[in-house]
Amino acid sequence: MSQVRLGEIVDELGGELIGSRDLTISRIGPLEGATPSTLSFLSHPRYQAQLATTQAGCVIVAPAMREAAVARGAALVTDDPYLYFARLTQWWARRVRPALPPGVHPSAVVSPKALLGRDVRIEAGAVVEADAVVGEGAVVGAQGYVGQGARLGAGTRLAPRVTVLERCSLGERCIVHPGAVIGADGFGFAPHAGEWVKIEQLGAVRIGNDVEIGANTCIDRGALDDTVIEDGVKLDNLIQIAHNVHIGAHTAMAACVGVAGSARIGRHCTVGGSAGILGHLTIVDHVHISAMALVTRSILQPGVYSGSFPIDDNKTWEKNAATLRQLHTLRERLRALEKKFSP
Amino acid sequence: MSQVRLGEIVDELGGELIGSRDLTISRIGPLEGATPSTLSFLSHPRYQAQLATTQAGCVIVAPAMREAAVARGAALVTDDPYLYFARLTQWWARRVRPALPPGVHPSAVVSPKALLGRDVRIEAGAVVEADAVVGEGAVVGAQGYVGQGARLGAGTRLAPRVTVLERCSLGERCIVHPGAVIGADGFGFAPHAGEWVKIEQLGAVRIGNDVEIGANTCIDRGALDDTVIEDGVKLDNLIQIAHNVHIGAHTAMAACVGVAGSARIGRHCTVGGSAGILGHLTIVDHVHISAMALVTRSILQPGVYSGSFPIDDNKTWEKNAATLRQLHTLRERLRALEKKFSP
Amino acid sequence: MSQVRLGEIVDELGGELIGSRDLTISRIGPLEGATPSTLSFLSHPRYQAQLATTQAGCVIVAPAMREAAVARGAALVTDDPYLYFARLTQWWARRVRPALPPGVHPSAVVSPKALLGRDVRIEAGAVVEADAVVGEGAVVGAQGYVGQGARLGAGTRLAPRVTVLERCSLGERCIVHPGAVIGADGFGFAPHAGEWVKIEQLGAVRIGNDVEIGANTCIDRGALDDTVIEDGVKLDNLIQIAHNVHIGAHTAMAACVGVAGSARIGRHCTVGGSAGILGHLTIVDHVHISAMALVTRSILQPGVYSGSFPIDDNKTWEKNAATLRQLHTLRERLRALEKKFSP
Repeated sequence: MSQVRLGEIVDELGGELIGSRDLTISRIGPLEGATPSTLSFLSHPRYQAQLATTQAGCVIVAPAMREAAVARGAALVTDDPYLYFARLTQWWARRVRPALPPGVHPSAVVSPKALLGRDVRIEAGAVVEADAVVGEGAVVGAQGYVGQGARLGAGTRLAPRVTVLERCSLGERCIVHPGAVIGADGFGFAPHAGEWVKIEQLGAVRIGNDVEIGANTCIDRGALDDTVIEDGVKLDNLIQIAHNVHIGAHTAMAACVGVAGSARIGRHCTVGGSAGILGHLTIVDHVHISAMALVTRSILQPGVYSGSFPIDDNKTWEKNAATLRQLHTLRERLRALEKKFSP
Repeated sequence: MSQVRLGEIVDELGGELIGSRDLTISRIGPLEGATPSTLSFLSHPRYQAQLATTQAGCVIVAPAMREAAVARGAALVTDDPYLYFARLTQWWARRVRPALPPGVHPSAVVSPKALLGRDVRIEAGAVVEADAVVGEGAVVGAQGYVGQGARLGAGTRLAPRVTVLERCSLGERCIVHPGAVIGADGFGFAPHAGEWVKIEQLGAVRIGNDVEIGANTCIDRGALDDTVIEDGVKLDNLIQIAHNVHIGAHTAMAACVGVAGSARIGRHCTVGGSAGILGHLTIVDHVHISAMALVTRSILQPGVYSGSFPIDDNKTWEKNAATLRQLHTLRERLRALEKKFSP
Repeated sequence: MSQVRLGEIVDELGGELIGSRDLTISRIGPLEGATPSTLSFLSHPRYQAQLATTQAGCVIVAPAMREAAVARGAALVTDDPYLYFARLTQWWARRVRPALPPGVHPSAVVSPKALLGRDVRIEAGAVVEADAVVGEGAVVGAQGYVGQGARLGAGTRLAPRVTVLERCSLGERCIVHPGAVIGADGFGFAPHAGEWVKIEQLGAVRIGNDVEIGANTCIDRGALDDTVIEDGVKLDNLIQIAHNVHIGAHTAMAACVGVAGSARIGRHCTVGGSAGILGHLTIVDHVHISAMALVTRSILQPGVYSGSFPIDDNKTWEKNAATLRQLHTLRERLRALEKKFSP
């Protein structure tokens, strides 16, 4: 592993160090389980109690926590400890996982008609088809597939086993995790005499800069126009984005979310895990959907929206669920009683 | 892109053209955002208002919309505009994406004991095992896997990176999207002394003709008998079909649906996104399940079935959810009041 | 197919055979659809009625069913017929699917710095990176990926197209199905000025012995510490396990479950399909979560927990759902009535 002095970190990332620049850090870690060579952080005053007991060599804290932190040892004071921690992980990762060298692995199958930028890295078993464009410094991980005319912007990294199908494009500095599928056909059929007639999906997928896409997540190509993911969107694993969806910049979705066709989601939204969003509706900016809620209509006001059945012990749930199936009747009965006794 | 005269389209697909056969079309597109070289369609009278404002060069409409359409320019009149549009996309796709030539890519690993039909296409990095049968004109996309004794019918197309495991079979003209897994082990274990003893999954998966299977969708092999998907079934992305499920012809499922073991689903059903179907139950033909509903018992009458918690602003949801946890008590209290005042 | 005499089975697996040791069995199958050469089993007294009508050559039954079984033909009596059946499928599978020979396929790309144990099998198109360790008798299926420094214990089998990323480890005798992704980045970002700053995921995934992981299931690497899956855990397909989750030994999860970050799940738990578990909570041992329930708080008592909206015909659901949105008001009204008439 890596070893680093606290002074190097502060020189690189800023913050006010209270304690010795020479303290050696070998690990970034949570307060719990930290050792004297661990650099830890306190993201929220709620965890303050852990400050007293942690063995961490140094703790990153907000100004308000300065005294409590100093009382126990070295501290690194910064306005936003969580942000500092994020940047620290990035700096740390560059040290312990140096960028792999550019080059095309001999087992990769790259069309002579593909356009490779400077310093690209194409790993073992990858396939890059004709007219594909791989931007400067971009990486196609092992066993990845970049279809005909697809485009990866500069610095975009596909992990192993990612599929980007024909004519789809990603901007710069995107990260795509294994198993993700970008540009499979949208699910479109016209019913005819009891059967389904395929609507060929003639659009593509257009993804902005700094987008991250999780493992086994699927983003379908549009039917006629494109499916669009704006800059800075973050999608977790196993998410379904249907054809012609539009996701605004800096929106983030947790795992297992499903978004149906032509939904239009605003900027700076968050969607909780396993939530669903029906098709052909609009969600404005700054909307936050809770886990497992189903959005069945447009949401035109910013705010937090929820809709999951509260979990309970099975016996209680069964009784309540049974009653719920007669809820409308209950309301009628209540109304009747009220009427009887209204003046 | 492609350019085509309206006359060519009508010659190929029929319909009554009102307007010039020589009008040049360069794009099929929605009414909104259409240009004078766009061929658009009006699938539902509900969107009629868009007719007046669209710039589309020609609009496909139903007979009832003939006058409104003609008032604004060229029209293509047909009984079912949506079906016409579907067929138009197919014709268009054949023009802009000509079929790729047959042949086995030198990087593919094809067992000498595999049986390849005429004009098959095996793309880069694909693996085809012994005793596999690839029917006439079938395609195994890049990095695809066709296991021992698996069978692909004539004209079936696997997109890149599809897995079809040993002894599983697909009929003719199927389409399978990237990341789909056909024939992984069903999830079967016998409990014993607090541990799980694996039940080897000895069946396979049998898929009919004209089936489409979405990206990263999983269809497990049967435990003893086969998992069966009948003709014309359409499965969207990220769907789980467990062992020994039987899905009747022309049933369609939206993304993220989970179907548990040995469920038997009828023909011409539809299942909304993220819905769940428990195991060992029966759903008859022509049943429609809404998004995120959980089917917990057999459904023996055709119809539409629903069961999701209505979404609300978080504060309201919290209050209602809290009350829901006491719903049974509420009923008791209502009953007590009623009793008190019954004659 | 295989043919075997009943006597061989009893010699191998035990149990009391009532009937001829020479009866030939060519198939293990359910009671329904069985033929005179089928060996079937009665797992639960509830299915006893099928005993009278089945054509099965022999039926595995519990002692309590001995007389009913013998009345119709050969029987194999054992304390736990389902467990016997599981072991029978394992024995059968070894006969009909003999282990494939060890060896490294010439198309595989194995780093000279990888450490391969005795008798490993590396299939076509697989990639094994530097410092990876593949234990004795382990299998890396076709097109699989084993990242730098990853470890597979002895006898662990990766089906085709599995991804195990850098520094992740699996114990012995694990089975991983196609498309599974072990060790993708956890979903971690610090919000900053309306954008998301990536928290590099510096941990890994540590998986115990005898774990089975389903197709397209994702287990993310930890942010700082590791994500941990203990011995004997069974995960079905399309499951999401977020970073730093800890799953106790012998817990089983059905398909499409999502577990959010840092959740701590006990031993011997079961989680039904499409259920969700929020992050940073604790579930003790022997907890059973029903399908599609959302665990929103720690569960500190063993038991069965549920929370899904009961499905209904759409009309009834609509009325009840509409009422549900006013449930809190209903309670207020009931309270008002009660107050009015309290003595």
